[in-house]
Amino acid sequence: MKKSLFLLLFISTTAFSQTREDSIIIRKIYDEVLTNGQAYEWLRYLCKQVGPRLSGSVGAQKAVIYTKELMEKQAFDRVFLQDVKVPHWVRGAKEEAYIKLGKQKIKVPIAALGGSVATAPKGVEAEVIEVKSFQQLRELGKDKVKGKIVFFNRPMDPTKLNTFEAYGGAVEQRANGATEAGNLGAVGAIVRSVTTLQDDVPHSGSMRYATGVPLIPTAAISTNAANLLSEKLKENPSLTFFFRQHCETLPDADSHNVVGELKGSEKPEEIIVVGGHLDSWDLAEGAHDDGAGCVQSIEVLRLLKAIGYTPKRTIRAVMFMNEENGLRGGVKYADLAKQNNEKHIAAVESDNGGFTPKGFGIVGKAEQKAKIAGWKSLLAPYSLHEIGPGGGGADIGPLAQSGTVLFGYKPDTQRYFDYHHAANDNFENVNKRELDLGTASMAAIIYLLDKYGI
Amino acid sequence: MKKSLFLLLFISTTAFSQTREDSIIIRKIYDEVLTNGQAYEWLRYLCKQVGPRLSGSVGAQKAVIYTKELMEKQAFDRVFLQDVKVPHWVRGAKEEAYIKLGKQKIKVPIAALGGSVATAPKGVEAEVIEVKSFQQLRELGKDKVKGKIVFFNRPMDPTKLNTFEAYGGAVEQRANGATEAGNLGAVGAIVRSVTTLQDDVPHSGSMRYATGVPLIPTAAISTNAANLLSEKLKENPSLTFFFRQHCETLPDADSHNVVGELKGSEKPEEIIVVGGHLDSWDLAEGAHDDGAGCVQSIEVLRLLKAIGYTPKRTIRAVMFMNEENGLRGGVKYADLAKQNNEKHIAAVESDNGGFTPKGFGIVGKAEQKAKIAGWKSLLAPYSLHEIGPGGGGADIGPLAQSGTVLFGYKPDTQRYFDYHHAANDNFENVNKRELDLGTASMAAIIYLLDKYGI
Repeated sequence: MKKSLFLLLFISTTAFSQTREDSIIIRKIYDEVLTNGQAYEWLRYLCKQVGPRLSGSVGAQKAVIYTKELMEKQAFDRVFLQDVKVPHWVRGAKEEAYIKLGKQKIKVPIAALGGSVATAPKGVEAEVIEVKSFQQLRELGKDKVKGKIVFFNRPMDPTKLNTFEAYGGAVEQRANGATEAGNLGAVGAIVRSVTTLQDDVPHSGSMRYATGVPLIPTAAISTNAANLLSEKLKENPSLTFFFRQHCETLPDADSHNVVGELKGSEKPEEIIVVGGHLDSWDLAEGAHDDGAGCVQSIEVLRLLKAIGYTPKRTIRAVMFMNEENGLRGGVKYADLAKQNNEKHIAAVESDNGGFTPKGFGIVGKAEQKAKIAGWKSLLAPYSLHEIGPGGGGADIGPLAQSGTVLFGYKPDTQRYFDYHHAANDNFENVNKRELDLGTASMAAIIYLLDKYGI
Repeated sequence: MKKSLFLLLFISTTAFSQTREDSIIIRKIYDEVLTNGQAYEWLRYLCKQVGPRLSGSVGAQKAVIYTKELMEKQAFDRVFLQDVKVPHWVRGAKEEAYIKLGKQKIKVPIAALGGSVATAPKGVEAEVIEVKSFQQLRELGKDKVKGKIVFFNRPMDPTKLNTFEAYGGAVEQRANGATEAGNLGAVGAIVRSVTTLQDDVPHSGSMRYATGVPLIPTAAISTNAANLLSEKLKENPSLTFFFRQHCETLPDADSHNVVGELKGSEKPEEIIVVGGHLDSWDLAEGAHDDGAGCVQSIEVLRLLKAIGYTPKRTIRAVMFMNEENGLRGGVKYADLAKQNNEKHIAAVESDNGGFTPKGFGIVGKAEQKAKIAGWKSLLAPYSLHEIGPGGGGADIGPLAQSGTVLFGYKPDTQRYFDYHHAANDNFENVNKRELDLGTASMAAIIYLLDKYGI
């Protein structure tokens, strides 16, 4: 036998038996999570006993303590906190709003946007200018906008199959609407909830004012109420809208990222992160956003231990603080990694809800993507068909600078914006099997990254 | 230029422009359903205004009238009924059941299985034999089983990713448990609900007695109650179980399949069917099982009309009657097709719930499967990655004899058995976008089948 042929046979036999070993380990991961998954009960606790956990809140602090103790109970090799100063915005008393048509007042559901200022104590009332885009608003100009409430009413594009794309096409209204409106002299900004549903719950979320603009109050209005307002405006363009909100921004608060670690047995200096964010909006339990990602991340480490796998590299579950309105935790984590000369080879984030997994969006170099593409046949039996381009995740984003390959966990997106930032993002809307399959897909990727590097 | 090269270029250019045209039409289908989908509101009506519709019930008859009128309003070329005689089983008054431990009675939720006989009017009470398999029961033998209630307690295998596979591994207990138990002298059979959830609602479904066996009453018990019963039996093997049910089988009733048709413009004699079943269990609204499949099928025809597509072949939406406890409608449809010398080239069934589509299971010849595989690149952009082997559907099954290619619509299966045959299979548990994407995937397949034949 020629040497080269022998070598080829040797290599391909080795590759075959490695693939076989990999497929056995991945199957073990799935079997463990589907028969003995813990994440769902942890999520129940996080939702029902801890509850809403906006940065700076008592809930956020409770969540830090709960997840730290939970990881300690799992006997991970190391569990520690990282100090993070976070913004501290509070909603205050419940908002009120109505459409005023002569003597008739039609109550509508609104929620102040995170970061917004309050209205005057007695509220604000003004005529309404409805627009679908910033362009349209700018063309109206100061004359028509001054003294009015601007109503941003562009829906998410329903024809986008990936609802995150549709979100991307609408969310600027929420993020920057108050700045655009304030610049033209408006006294308030009302934003159509960024959701795929026609519903009666306002979907909140963060906004920010550009430097130097007038700080006008801004709130999300439910999609059904947005439709109603739009309809009434057609009938009566001089109707007025009233709203009152009591939110305020307090001084920055002390908080933490929470980190649990399995120490690598061969290359402990190489770190792989799996994480989600621990903070949530204040209106609900933050079940899909992002309690799911947190408990999945802890469960990934538990799964690897449970199946008896000894990681070569160091694997960390990270609960990032303050993704929703500041990203301070993600930034701090990357800063500390740099300060401490840590080498993060890869990071996986789950922040798209605990739904049935479809794949991963990867941010990395072409040769890294090619290596990952080589794993597709191991993942396809688990319906993970969509492994390719796409975002990594907000919290792990700052790690990209130092060359960390980022993986965004991509579940099915159809239901995510039904619950996003609204009062119904609760435990009841998470399905255990969907959550567990998501965890297993993350654990499978972490296993391959650990075994083969990247 | 050589002739053969020219021909090759011509063919590939034609193929390219055809593919382009196909992708444009498929995109139109998706855009129409996502911006103007009607199926969800039809389903609301079918669930909320018509409600449960077990074969022979008033609800089933109402559903026939509703879907007939609905298709007439859509101005399909022809809408007609097919007479079907159906079994007529009724549940009667609500069941009662308890575990009796000395003087303590612990109430538990049960539901008579469809086709079961009633208990004696005052109920049946006996000691309990718990088994996980028929094998185990047979090994116990008549001596140990006689006079007892057999408790079949094998759960669905949670490690199966496709929950329908797990269902297949457990459902024999429901279908044949009473026969097995009755053969050994048992006085009743209680079956663990065939569901992936730990819940408090019994999941009903059909059963049948083998010819000549004693007819003993049988019911499903909720999974939580099954766990409780199993636990209590370990503590106290001589506890007794009591249940009372009032169900009965009435004489066969008159009912109908409902058919709507778009007449083919070029080959009207070639028929393509898209269908679901109109009957449902009596405990809920039959939203996923199979209201979803019915409204999707009607919507497929509406979509093709709405985008201005003229089918070459005849396309029929069929609401089959009596899938749940007899399959009489499916059998009748195939019989009539044969009698009338109709040529059914393909049939698509949606009976796996209105969840996010993943692909289609195909029953057909190898060359037909190869042709379908050639369409994969047109369907992959819509996350339809799983197009291959797998069941077609119960109602369209009888068409296979005459060579019809069968397509089973395959959505994500994780949540299906949360609702299957239980009191929570209601409209609220259907997501509009998931339902609509399912419809679009079916319409895309129907379009390709119509255009290219099979």
